[in-house]
Amino acid sequence: MIYCSNCGQQVTYRTPPDDDRPRYCCESCGAIHYQNPKMVVGCIPQAGDKILLCRRAIEPCYGKWTLPAGFLENGETVADGAKRETYEEARARVDILAPYALYNICRVNQIYMMFRAQLKDHNYHAGTESLEVKLFCESEIPWEDIAFRVINATLLQYFTDRPSGHFAFFMGNIE
Amino acid sequence: MIYCSNCGQQVTYRTPPDDDRPRYCCESCGAIHYQNPKMVVGCIPQAGDKILLCRRAIEPCYGKWTLPAGFLENGETVADGAKRETYEEARARVDILAPYALYNICRVNQIYMMFRAQLKDHNYHAGTESLEVKLFCESEIPWEDIAFRVINATLLQYFTDRPSGHFAFFMGNIE
Repeated sequence: MIYCSNCGQQVTYRTPPDDDRPRYCCESCGAIHYQNPKMVVGCIPQAGDKILLCRRAIEPCYGKWTLPAGFLENGETVADGAKRETYEEARARVDILAPYALYNICRVNQIYMMFRAQLKDHNYHAGTESLEVKLFCESEIPWEDIAFRVINATLLQYFTDRPSGHFAFFMGNIE
Repeated sequence: MIYCSNCGQQVTYRTPPDDDRPRYCCESCGAIHYQNPKMVVGCIPQAGDKILLCRRAIEPCYGKWTLPAGFLENGETVADGAKRETYEEARARVDILAPYALYNICRVNQIYMMFRAQLKDHNYHAGTESLEVKLFCESEIPWEDIAFRVINATLLQYFTDRPSGHFAFFMGNIE
């Protein structure tokens, strides 16, 4: 941030009075521009003993496999955001089963919230951000070609929990 | 948003190509300014059969009681944010026990994440944003003077769950 989005003048980066960390402050109109983490929401779409992965058609990690997930939009619930991303990336319709995992990725100011979900039918296909979309059983997961560490962690946790049938809400950090 | 924070020119509000909703777009430098929900993190600090509430010294809801909570900051985990807010508002140190409730407040683009927490000692006192800080048992909760509906909902859920000793992670919407 270089210019004030409210009045167009240059901002300074300083700690306001009564605050304890630097913010982008406009000395012209007085606006303080707070910046906060963004939520990424997604799901593990399951169908029988398989789960649906998407192969990315965009950077970063072009060609790698991922779970459907993306930035939560204004005006939507976390569950609705996860369903929307699943439709956008995999053209798949899901029922959200339960919140499953929250990951802090402090380095990039992102909080991931992943749900378990049930695929409603098999009418899925690649959305514009995916090269292909495919169901995998555990032994087929392309562990060497997973797009992001947070997706790897989510999948590992899922396959660790699955034999017990007990999926407690999980919280973790991606360093 | 009126001006581009990147180049200082006026932005327009339109749907970019390959997108499905309007964004603040700079026609001068090409920047697209996405706006996303913010996370509010807080906790229910417990000590024996009592919980700690803060009476607000700031608007909105000046003079009303609330649980310690506030906006998650860049670079911190959701649990660390909840601990920080508890210290800022109640000068209380807590151990986070477990994530407890997530509330979508779509109308104001906020996602609340509340934790159960254990008060570490009784050296708490009002921070600058609180008039007073006090332990309440269930029968003493000032239900008529709770600051926000999301706090009311969190407290109701907590006292509903407490007799069973089983606090499953809960997700709800504040309309």
